[in-house]
Amino acid sequence: MDHPDRFDVIVVGGGHAGTEAALAAARMGVRTLLLTHSIETVGQMSCNPAIGGIGKGHLVREIDALGGIMARAADRGGIQFRTLNSRKGPAVRATRAQADRQLYRQAIRYAVEHQPNLSLFQQAVDDLIVEGGRVTGVVTGMGLRFRAHTVVLTVGTFLGGRIHIGERNYGGGRAGDQPANALAARLRELPFHVDRLKTGTPPRLDGRTIDWERLTEQPGDDPAPVFSFLGSRDEHPAQVPCHIAHTRPETHEIIRGALDRSPMYSGTIEGVGPRYCPSIEDKVVRFADKDSHQIFLEPEGLDTHEVYPNGISTSLPFDVQYALVRSVPGLEQARIVRPGYAIEYDFFDPRGLHPTLETRHLEGLWFAGQINGTTGYEEAAAQGLLAGLNAALRVQQRDPWYPRRDEAYLGVLVDDLITRGTREPYRMFTSRAEYRLMLREDNADLRLTPVGRSLGLVADDRWARFSDKRERLEREQARLADTLIRPGEVPEAVASEVLGGPLRKEQRLDELLRRPEVTYARLMQLPGAGDPESDPAVVEQLEIQARYAGYLERQRDEVARTRRHEQLPLPADMAFDQVAGLSSEVREKLIAHRPATIGQAARLPGITPAAVSLLLVHLRRQGLLKESA
Amino acid sequence: MDHPDRFDVIVVGGGHAGTEAALAAARMGVRTLLLTHSIETVGQMSCNPAIGGIGKGHLVREIDALGGIMARAADRGGIQFRTLNSRKGPAVRATRAQADRQLYRQAIRYAVEHQPNLSLFQQAVDDLIVEGGRVTGVVTGMGLRFRAHTVVLTVGTFLGGRIHIGERNYGGGRAGDQPANALAARLRELPFHVDRLKTGTPPRLDGRTIDWERLTEQPGDDPAPVFSFLGSRDEHPAQVPCHIAHTRPETHEIIRGALDRSPMYSGTIEGVGPRYCPSIEDKVVRFADKDSHQIFLEPEGLDTHEVYPNGISTSLPFDVQYALVRSVPGLEQARIVRPGYAIEYDFFDPRGLHPTLETRHLEGLWFAGQINGTTGYEEAAAQGLLAGLNAALRVQQRDPWYPRRDEAYLGVLVDDLITRGTREPYRMFTSRAEYRLMLREDNADLRLTPVGRSLGLVADDRWARFSDKRERLEREQARLADTLIRPGEVPEAVASEVLGGPLRKEQRLDELLRRPEVTYARLMQLPGAGDPESDPAVVEQLEIQARYAGYLERQRDEVARTRRHEQLPLPADMAFDQVAGLSSEVREKLIAHRPATIGQAARLPGITPAAVSLLLVHLRRQGLLKESA
Ligand SMILES: Cc1cc2nc3c(=O)[nH]c(=O)nc-3n(C[C@H](O)[C@H](O)[C@H](O)COP(=O)(O)OP(=O)(O)OC[C@H]3O[C@@H](n4cnc5c(N)ncnc54)[C@H](O)[C@@H]3O)c2cc1C
Ligand SMILES: Cc1cc2nc3c(=O)[nH]c(=O)nc-3n(C[C@H](O)[C@H](O)[C@H](O)COP(=O)(O)OP(=O)(O)OC[C@H]3O[C@@H](n4cnc5c(N)ncnc54)[C@H](O)[C@@H]3O)c2cc1C
Repeated sequence: MDHPDRFDVIVVGGGHAGTEAALAAARMGVRTLLLTHSIETVGQMSCNPAIGGIGKGHLVREIDALGGIMARAADRGGIQFRTLNSRKGPAVRATRAQADRQLYRQAIRYAVEHQPNLSLFQQAVDDLIVEGGRVTGVVTGMGLRFRAHTVVLTVGTFLGGRIHIGERNYGGGRAGDQPANALAARLRELPFHVDRLKTGTPPRLDGRTIDWERLTEQPGDDPAPVFSFLGSRDEHPAQVPCHIAHTRPETHEIIRGALDRSPMYSGTIEGVGPRYCPSIEDKVVRFADKDSHQIFLEPEGLDTHEVYPNGISTSLPFDVQYALVRSVPGLEQARIVRPGYAIEYDFFDPRGLHPTLETRHLEGLWFAGQINGTTGYEEAAAQGLLAGLNAALRVQQRDPWYPRRDEAYLGVLVDDLITRGTREPYRMFTSRAEYRLMLREDNADLRLTPVGRSLGLVADDRWARFSDKRERLEREQARLADTLIRPGEVPEAVASEVLGGPLRKEQRLDELLRRPEVTYARLMQLPGAGDPESDPAVVEQLEIQARYAGYLERQRDEVARTRRHEQLPLPADMAFDQVAGLSSEVREKLIAHRPATIGQAARLPGITPAAVSLLLVHLRRQGLLKESA
Repeated sequence: MDHPDRFDVIVVGGGHAGTEAALAAARMGVRTLLLTHSIETVGQMSCNPAIGGIGKGHLVREIDALGGIMARAADRGGIQFRTLNSRKGPAVRATRAQADRQLYRQAIRYAVEHQPNLSLFQQAVDDLIVEGGRVTGVVTGMGLRFRAHTVVLTVGTFLGGRIHIGERNYGGGRAGDQPANALAARLRELPFHVDRLKTGTPPRLDGRTIDWERLTEQPGDDPAPVFSFLGSRDEHPAQVPCHIAHTRPETHEIIRGALDRSPMYSGTIEGVGPRYCPSIEDKVVRFADKDSHQIFLEPEGLDTHEVYPNGISTSLPFDVQYALVRSVPGLEQARIVRPGYAIEYDFFDPRGLHPTLETRHLEGLWFAGQINGTTGYEEAAAQGLLAGLNAALRVQQRDPWYPRRDEAYLGVLVDDLITRGTREPYRMFTSRAEYRLMLREDNADLRLTPVGRSLGLVADDRWARFSDKRERLEREQARLADTLIRPGEVPEAVASEVLGGPLRKEQRLDELLRRPEVTYARLMQLPGAGDPESDPAVVEQLEIQARYAGYLERQRDEVARTRRHEQLPLPADMAFDQVAGLSSEVREKLIAHRPATIGQAARLPGITPAAVSLLLVHLRRQGLLKESA
């Protein structure tokens, strides 16, 4: 039977990808339906109770700059906030929030339920409706057909999900939830390239049975950073510390002694796991010389005793989990309340996707989240947003949109996925971005909010806040560039305090701000500096943009050059071994992959911008490139 | 593999029965484990977001009097409180709270997680360990064996659960949750008498699509009643109203036109549904002359738009659900966010249970909740408490305990179940109790807290509060009985205001309080009445106990008499048709059931205390009864 209502966009799955997808489409004003197994699990975190971190925090800020919910929910659910790499350069600084699972889920559900143009419906989707080579709807478990112009599939780890604990395994989408087997079977009949991946989670502990006194406390930052560009510290619930424990040689002995009973080593699991989020058995095998690993004991919420021991994800049998936990100092009496497990699931080769995440095989169908071979809430949410907004653009008969690699981590993510595919669960790192210094957390709004506004993703309140900030920034930048400070006007004592030494020649304020030791606040103490700007977010931009102006300029040039040559073809018979100056490693990669354009070459892993320059020099010498590179 | 920890009591299932069972056992100091599918669903309400009501509220207060959690959670999660039947006698007055689902669940989970002696573990139980005719543990889905002296099974509607929507059906424990099929299959191999029941739930609506202006508002009581004897109004979250809508003839047309597609009428569902909680299709068929039924639109919480339309539980196909909802004035635009459905599940004939709810077939195994053929959170919770406390008593090698029919609705419930069994989902009504006036909500503490204390269920704070109340009550009752008021001392105007007329003779205060028009507060205005008692709970008891003293006395006599004759045998060949004065209906029942004792006869449905008296008279005449009846 057909549901009587018609929708523009149907999103299947209420996880991190699905909620951002549905919210984005609805914000753009199209009639959107979010269909999911259970309304109770909308916004549920399957694994660790945390949002952000290096690379991931960047994605969260980008989602936020485009009007998404993740950062706002993290501000409302976050019970410990930190800025990671706070002593390093601004490119790799990242926000991370420990979240109260319940509060986070509530914030997401609240947003979903209160979003105009968005309807919710609780049911499993078992099938897609395909007509004339395009998707026109979905069929639920009770045979109900929902029709729509576009469908976004975000069903996470549920497709043919199988949970493994030691030698035992059984069907499940994650612990406590049933898998999506009917849909998985149907999708395997369609012309998608399907494979298996796996991921794991640690056992959860009863905090009342942990000897906290013996562990190292790790408090959050004070003052706490705020995640959303619209957020504020007042939104944060009570803040609590984490603690750190350490495995010891005995722990590793226990694990080594049980490897034959691990489904990963016994061969029961075929799917590949995340290299950068390894299980404890992986770590013990791969880093055999280390005799201790850290375990971060993260509170699961303010109202619960449950504790998430970050660092000991495992699919070892339960008795081994029990023994390994209890071998850790401070956890000798620890009770496990949920066993750790691994889950294997179907994913689709993302090389079958357009850069909008629409599938190449079926028009009108988008894939987002874990089913594209990624791992992590943030990676899922970012994809969801992109898929949802492009589904809405299609409905509105507008051009698709996706960011380039130099515009957003979201651009890096999608470009990596669709051009390289992935053989293991893909997660974001700052090292994946060529133009790290341009893609900072702090400027995500400057990079993306204007385009978000033009897409229809950014509501008036956010736009007003953003416009005000941008205006203040530009006004103050102009003023700093216009204001000259003359040596005679600055008393020596002041110059030495503010500038670290006497002012030798007349200089503009913006030039002075570039000096590494000069802060804006100090600079404003100079006589003649004028009225300072008070908004700390603007001040942060002034300082970073001034201090890194040279580097940023160089990155922008590089971007421009690469873009100019992006489509430049490489001859099919190009003799990479004759390109002067290339390292043998780079040479081998190029020979193995035979990129068709400079752009493709530039995106191969390990191909540096310097190597690209060498290729361009070579092409020019061969007369294959006219302009100056 | 065996879990290394040993437990005294294992409770399987974290629903209403399971949480009370686990909390009760742990309060009594034995090592308790609660094993459930998912910690996220602990305390989840499967159906309507409300606690209490007539008969059910009585159970909740009894659970509370024994130290249970349900009333306390209702106070913390309740968003609308009412006293039903507030104008009727105190026997049938009952408290009902509309609950915010999330807050209610959180309150239960908080209690479970913070209870000493109670551990939680998340896993499905697939099997029981049976050794030498007794249960000694359980086996989980991952093959983990937990050992314990006693096991309490409280797995609700999950055993072989099948969800029906129109012509479609599929396995599920409730919407969004998987069924317990492995366990169901194993239990069917054991010597229990298994049968099927069914229950249903209405579709949920998006409150934003309801035209509230056109509906009748139903506010809560002001001041709001409080559920727990330890509760207070300050604990209540914000309060909101409900609304009432009405079906109309067109609605009934729609339903009648689709009966052949209803799984209940087409014969697909074999299980019997709850007669007193009928589906809307049932109501339309059974009350064919009515052309309108009420629908209570109950908010599902403070933070959600979801609305529970109480009164239209249905398993009709989705298109019919859609049409019937939209035919209701005010719901023309209503969006369904979760479809209504019926669920069929295994239950065990409760006649196979001891009055402690231990199974007769397997020592050490208790059954509680929906699996015993009941329906309702309160019925489940009450059984859970009883089973949990008796499992703990067994571990402590103490005598079992259960209340009699004249002591508690819990006694009525258990006695009904184990002696009569049930052919349809059993729910509590005040009409099921013979001694209604004794079993009031207001005196649940006086009836049960002392025994709860001696069992070890009642903690110090509750005991102190209770003892203080009882002491004040007794002191004031003694004072009222000791204080004489003389006509000459009361000015005529005062007498007429307080007593409704002149005082004609000297009377004790307690005698005056028996007069129906006299309240305690007014009475205390009489000159010479002395210092009044200030605790409103004590005042309520003073008034009720005084006003109904005569009736209560009579009920107590009846109880004593019945108890005296409880075991009195009825001759195997007793000629019921020769007992004078019996109605033909009663006579037929007796002939059909042939009770073996007076007690059994008294408990047959439709056998009134008057009929029992006639039987006793007959027996005395036959020389079969010596004492005076
Ligand atoms: C055991 C485990 C361990 C993990 N470990 C890590 C880790 O170490 N590091 C890390 O970064 N990430 C980890 N993750 C991954 C992280 O949980 C996911 O990356 C993230 O949740 C993906 O988001 P998603 O929106 O793609 O899918 P999900 O969050 O899985 O959401 C999928 C949603 O779709 C719904 N759904 C599924 N099928 C259907 C259907 N047929 N019809 C209707 N609704 C459907 C589900 O109910 C759910 O709401 C782990 C996940 C699991 C399960
Ligand atoms: C669709 C529906 C409609 C209903 N309609 C009404 C109504 O109209 N009126 C009314 O009064 N009541 C109704 N109810 C009944 C009410 O929900 C139940 O009476 C009440 O929830 C029973 O409580 P319980 O504790 O026995 O079981 P539940 O609340 O069902 O709890 C069972 C628990 O056991 C867990 N569990 C199950 N199997 C296993 C296993 N193998 N291993 C581990 N854990 C397990 C589950 O996850 C769950 O936590 C309805 C229920 C449903 C599902």
